[in-house]
Amino acid sequence: MKSYRKELYFTTNKRREYINITPDVERAVIESGIKEGLCLVNAMHITASVFINDDEAGLHQDFEAWLEKMAPEKPYSMYHHNGYEDNADAHIKRQIFGREVVVAITNGELDFGPWEQIFYGEFDGMRRKRVLIKIIGE
Amino acid sequence: MKSYRKELYFTTNKRREYINITPDVERAVIESGIKEGLCLVNAMHITASVFINDDEAGLHQDFEAWLEKMAPEKPYSMYHHNGYEDNADAHIKRQIFGREVVVAITNGELDFGPWEQIFYGEFDGMRRKRVLIKIIGE
Amino acid sequence: MKSYRKELYFTTNKRREYINITPDVERAVIESGIKEGLCLVNAMHITASVFINDDEAGLHQDFEAWLEKMAPEKPYSMYHHNGYEDNADAHIKRQIFGREVVVAITNGELDFGPWEQIFYGEFDGMRRKRVLIKIIGE
Repeated sequence: MKSYRKELYFTTNKRREYINITPDVERAVIESGIKEGLCLVNAMHITASVFINDDEAGLHQDFEAWLEKMAPEKPYSMYHHNGYEDNADAHIKRQIFGREVVVAITNGELDFGPWEQIFYGEFDGMRRKRVLIKIIGE
Repeated sequence: MKSYRKELYFTTNKRREYINITPDVERAVIESGIKEGLCLVNAMHITASVFINDDEAGLHQDFEAWLEKMAPEKPYSMYHHNGYEDNADAHIKRQIFGREVVVAITNGELDFGPWEQIFYGEFDGMRRKRVLIKIIGE
Repeated sequence: MKSYRKELYFTTNKRREYINITPDVERAVIESGIKEGLCLVNAMHITASVFINDDEAGLHQDFEAWLEKMAPEKPYSMYHHNGYEDNADAHIKRQIFGREVVVAITNGELDFGPWEQIFYGEFDGMRRKRVLIKIIGE
């Protein structure tokens, strides 16, 4: 069994942003030399998500509006967590969108359906944060 | 390390439907010959989910009503994604219910608690869509 | 390839509770002797979650209040599932927070960012329930 590990770094310009990291993960799969296995991609921070969906700007606007309706950023005082912090909404948004994805590797490639793309979902950005890629297989 | 790959196909009669795919996954585990490992089951489309919950018709009615309240199908015009499409709600429903499950394989079987069943959750159906099963282990 | 399996047991005092199980999972990783691999941690029951977030009491209050707003426990009669049961809300809460986490193991340790902690999220407690840890790797 082989394994491979890589970190990605992000500093977004806005508090909330979606970044397509599919090319980075594809590169890591090639670097790993693994042909058959599983690829874990997870946010290493608890106010961010990694998820798979469509790379369509309108949909990302819908995600932003919908998450803000579900768990609004403000007023900050509505959350107990926000004594010294202001990011309780980001913790909740991350719970909805999830921490990680696990993707099959087949014939040395991400084994994807036609529209699957991997996104880093930042909900409390403007500072350096990390994503972990861990691949195991043969 | 061994690996095994299989696709399942679904064309639902309704836009939204829950299909118990546990027997299909159990069959794949047997076909794989893998006794100890991990089994990934994921929707290959971004308007569908794979999740684990109870096979109880009343609960599935509750899921349907609850998801419709959270992210209603209509009016289509409420979503930016719905210029040429009408399925923004399905992309959001899939975000809530998740893309995939990872299940342990122990002694050649899905290592489940008493009521765990695997479902394909279709949120934009009436056309052919796929689920991927990928098993690694020994 | 090596594999390791362990169950954890919980009987909470309240219907809903969050328990930090990181030390239990760390112990299992050591017991497994696995240095590089993947660690699956999943609820074996369908009214409970395993998830990763912050160990901060105010945030857990926010989670409780937010989930109750999203899928209230009462009135029980609002759910079709609640004919003989009263836990439809717990099934839905678990859908939002997810069943499982998959964590990378690197150099014999959980490969975590600075604040990641693993929680058992109980949504229908006061009885004995289980979590499965399954580790594969080398």
